[in-house]
Amino acid sequence: MKLASLKAGGRDGTLIVVDTALTRAVRVPHIAATLQQALERWAEARPALQAVSDALNAGTAAGAFDLDMQALASPLPRAFQFLDGSVYLHHMEKARRARGAAMPPNYKTEPLMYQGLSDRFDGPRDPMRFPDEALGLDYEPEVAVVLDDVPMGTPAAQAGAHIQLLMLMNDYTLRALTRSELPKGFGFMQAKPTSAFSPVAVTPDELGAAWDGTRLSLPLLSSVNGRVMGRANAGHDMFFDYPQLIAHAARTRGLSAGTILGAGAVANKDPATGHACLAELRADEELANGQATTPWLRHGDRVRIEMLDGEGRSLFGAIDQAIEQV
Amino acid sequence: MKLASLKAGGRDGTLIVVDTALTRAVRVPHIAATLQQALERWAEARPALQAVSDALNAGTAAGAFDLDMQALASPLPRAFQFLDGSVYLHHMEKARRARGAAMPPNYKTEPLMYQGLSDRFDGPRDPMRFPDEALGLDYEPEVAVVLDDVPMGTPAAQAGAHIQLLMLMNDYTLRALTRSELPKGFGFMQAKPTSAFSPVAVTPDELGAAWDGTRLSLPLLSSVNGRVMGRANAGHDMFFDYPQLIAHAARTRGLSAGTILGAGAVANKDPATGHACLAELRADEELANGQATTPWLRHGDRVRIEMLDGEGRSLFGAIDQAIEQV
Repeated sequence: MKLASLKAGGRDGTLIVVDTALTRAVRVPHIAATLQQALERWAEARPALQAVSDALNAGTAAGAFDLDMQALASPLPRAFQFLDGSVYLHHMEKARRARGAAMPPNYKTEPLMYQGLSDRFDGPRDPMRFPDEALGLDYEPEVAVVLDDVPMGTPAAQAGAHIQLLMLMNDYTLRALTRSELPKGFGFMQAKPTSAFSPVAVTPDELGAAWDGTRLSLPLLSSVNGRVMGRANAGHDMFFDYPQLIAHAARTRGLSAGTILGAGAVANKDPATGHACLAELRADEELANGQATTPWLRHGDRVRIEMLDGEGRSLFGAIDQAIEQV
Repeated sequence: MKLASLKAGGRDGTLIVVDTALTRAVRVPHIAATLQQALERWAEARPALQAVSDALNAGTAAGAFDLDMQALASPLPRAFQFLDGSVYLHHMEKARRARGAAMPPNYKTEPLMYQGLSDRFDGPRDPMRFPDEALGLDYEPEVAVVLDDVPMGTPAAQAGAHIQLLMLMNDYTLRALTRSELPKGFGFMQAKPTSAFSPVAVTPDELGAAWDGTRLSLPLLSSVNGRVMGRANAGHDMFFDYPQLIAHAARTRGLSAGTILGAGAVANKDPATGHACLAELRADEELANGQATTPWLRHGDRVRIEMLDGEGRSLFGAIDQAIEQV
């Protein structure tokens, strides 16, 4: 099933069920007011939501209405936790080469992961506002999972069972600030502004064989101003998978229901899949020509991130945002 | 006024108003169900809560009951954002010396700050559970502020007006993990387990002249198994103050109501104020004797953190936790 949140209803939005085709939706106040509330008692909420989803897809759901993408917040408009790994090492190697930084120690023995901003996410069609083009705004297309309660010490072999939903994500990065921020060791503060997620979050069963319980093997499409930039397969070249990331995060703490966990900018070794982000493209330009010519994102640009199934149908809906001045 | 949250009522607890003496309390469901909800509409909630507080302190509040510290969650049992600075440079210098690490670049021109775990905090009298003594558990006494909505780009001169509450905090750290985690640059993941806050959060006016709008100038007392370890004045030796920390955090993002912002382990240069944490004490032992003899926290230990006013009255109540095996 596919779930989303209307902006209406407050900072946590209003939970709705969306049909497979992403055209119709229905409110479910009798099940849960918000997606966060549903996740906190998922064992009861999931079957109730599934019944609504079945009726909606059969055309028999009472109160169904046409889905307006502009009316959507992020499926979780805010979250108590967002953790982001960096498991596509090809991306990390290029991003670090571009800023003249070495690879971090132990990066092949344990996942690199940071605690990210989660107090407010942008809606999938909302403008992304940032103050100054000199900060070097870049996009990063990701696949994120949403968890129910994960006890401390859960091993990877049991962690996959806690993955309840998947979403796409645009994890914006201010490249001019990573240079000074990451060497301090304390992670990203100013360098990671507000992110955006896909219009809907989907249950793993909605993804069929493309989801094997550990990774999602479909191309993740990104474009800037209509120009396709990347189509890397999210299931390829993952050095650590989602259950391994969850186990890493849960080693010394439990993870509360509603935790969002990303795996980093999706990038493949195969150059035919394009570039995950502008930092990668600019790194290639520097290697080839001695200087990067593609600019960072500018006010007025549009960034689109989407994933299609084998028949060309959008699985999560598109994140499609205009970049605007604050 | 002083505010707290009962554990009863779910993951966000139940908001109560507590009297100045920390002995009596009253529920306020007609104002807000939770502290998070109150902070999200603080302009209306604050005067209504203040009226209840005035009645409670006058002995005329209907429904008042005896305060049971064991029944309390953290004032915010969970939060959408926890940011922690490190502005007592004396602590940072000792902690880094102890693990053989250099001071981070630019540490005197902009505050060091990380995005911390906030999806669940321990109550002030709950056990602190962690799996393995070999992880090197240490405590860190801090003073944290709670904010209302802070717009992106708010300068330090205007940031202080967004400080609505103050709390004490025990920011636990697993020292054996900081050694391998911080050099990766992505901040703390496994090295910062679940923290705890004081029984009550207080409005700035409750602190009198000790709070000047930028820092809280009173000794912060910490003890382990009844032995006083530190009494550093939280207003001394701050290299950056709270409004400067807020402005740093808000440079490229807004901060949502309910954001908790700490300033790091309180440490003074004056050796008569003791040590902020075991890492500092052990660093001094190594310098003096060639090896550290005080062990890290062990299962069965108790850690207490408290702040008294000029008359010896506890301002926030004590964080007093037993360290236990998971």
